[in-house]
Amino acid sequence: MMSEKIISVAYQGEPGAYSTIAARKFFTSKIQLIPNESFDLVFKQVEENYSEFAVVPIENSLAGSIHQNYDLLLKHELFIIGELKLRIVHYLIANPGVSLANIKKIFSHPQALMQCQSNIASLGDKSIIPTYDTAGSVKKIKEEKIMDGGAIASDLAAEIYKMKILKNELQDSPENYTRFLLLSKKERIKKDSDKTSIVFSIENSPGALFRSISVFALRDIDLYKIESRPLHGKPWEYFFYIDFAGTLSDIKCRQAISDLQELTSYLKVLGSYQRDLNYLSKS
Amino acid sequence: MMSEKIISVAYQGEPGAYSTIAARKFFTSKIQLIPNESFDLVFKQVEENYSEFAVVPIENSLAGSIHQNYDLLLKHELFIIGELKLRIVHYLIANPGVSLANIKKIFSHPQALMQCQSNIASLGDKSIIPTYDTAGSVKKIKEEKIMDGGAIASDLAAEIYKMKILKNELQDSPENYTRFLLLSKKERIKKDSDKTSIVFSIENSPGALFRSISVFALRDIDLYKIESRPLHGKPWEYFFYIDFAGTLSDIKCRQAISDLQELTSYLKVLGSYQRDLNYLSKS
Repeated sequence: MMSEKIISVAYQGEPGAYSTIAARKFFTSKIQLIPNESFDLVFKQVEENYSEFAVVPIENSLAGSIHQNYDLLLKHELFIIGELKLRIVHYLIANPGVSLANIKKIFSHPQALMQCQSNIASLGDKSIIPTYDTAGSVKKIKEEKIMDGGAIASDLAAEIYKMKILKNELQDSPENYTRFLLLSKKERIKKDSDKTSIVFSIENSPGALFRSISVFALRDIDLYKIESRPLHGKPWEYFFYIDFAGTLSDIKCRQAISDLQELTSYLKVLGSYQRDLNYLSKS
Repeated sequence: MMSEKIISVAYQGEPGAYSTIAARKFFTSKIQLIPNESFDLVFKQVEENYSEFAVVPIENSLAGSIHQNYDLLLKHELFIIGELKLRIVHYLIANPGVSLANIKKIFSHPQALMQCQSNIASLGDKSIIPTYDTAGSVKKIKEEKIMDGGAIASDLAAEIYKMKILKNELQDSPENYTRFLLLSKKERIKKDSDKTSIVFSIENSPGALFRSISVFALRDIDLYKIESRPLHGKPWEYFFYIDFAGTLSDIKCRQAISDLQELTSYLKVLGSYQRDLNYLSKS
């Protein structure tokens, strides 16, 4: 009998992190989740073949882009092969026996703290302690027996560490979604791919960005997102990250990229994948 | 004799924060610097007339935009009336008698930690502890007599708190600049103003961003920066912040804004001011 190969998926954080919830939705088969302390290590894991895939958050509907992962997409040679939008529900979690009145400190990842800013403020005077991970904060208050502290994380984290939920729906808006990317060292463009991500830099001249975007507009190619990041060593110049409708198997997309190459000093295709249509704004 | 009115300027952080260095460069006359724990409080200080001006960082050439302040520009009714680019030199600061070998923990603001990421990593295995302020971290390790900890802050902070500098030029690149904004409740457009900042939102339709930018391109108006931020409550829609060349006293800029108003669901002029030409990329 052949043993079935188990797919390994790297993520940042501890068991119970939101990335693990996203990772399980990407795959129907059994996966082995590999925790990592930093996003940098997650990218390296896949680049050096220790894991086959990685799942990383790239954008949250309340707090904005996770810029570090945009920078890492540029630095490492991985392809985006999928995306998934996950509704994020934050819980305030504490050690069993602890009540809300006991909580003096709140631990969580800065992104989660940002998504719950107003609700945390309404809890009164609490010390906010940023940590490297949501689920890792639950682990910390458990292991260090912090009885005057709470952690903001998923209900899965509360379950895994057998901790108590003091409050649910702690995020400031019910409309709190995070978009996750599935990354691989090998480019895998599936038949149903309909979205492509690229990164480029342009010289700092009048109209340069306009001309760059025009290669899409002139061909009625829809842009889903544009994001700029500083170009290190060249202050006030930027890399632009663009997500657009279509893949390089469409002739008009190939032509747009070819035109864009003439205008840019650097261009890299990050990957083509199927667009996740969940939670699109109804407006 | 009339007593001279001293100008009050609100900033985030503690005495010795980089914002205080920027604030002193904005004014030739004597100013009173008002420290605040958060950026939100800084904006409120000016809005509620407790301070006449505020100085806030908006963008760093290594770490990127300070998104929170973009969001606060939208939320509060203040005008941008000036900008200043400051070269940022970070120092590793400790209590007198402490040497580099003693340092196990490094305290600073997340932005400063990001700007020194690689250099911190090269110092070996240190715990990184994010705090609310650079100078505030120096104050903390002094007041709490933390002998195994260092803080990343300005040399001014080391001087104010009478602490020891262990390392200088800790930022990962010498090309580390922060752009600061001068804010006021009253719009004050000076004669030498040549740059304007606006924010707008557009409906999520193909080509919408292209059409918005075209109102500038068609009139040869240079765009200095474009930045997107999520629109709360409408996942995957964005506010766009644009800085462009010119002011509303130029007819072509007025016409561009008037055209843009037809295309946008929301538009706000944040202010016109003199562009700081320091540290422009030489490429």
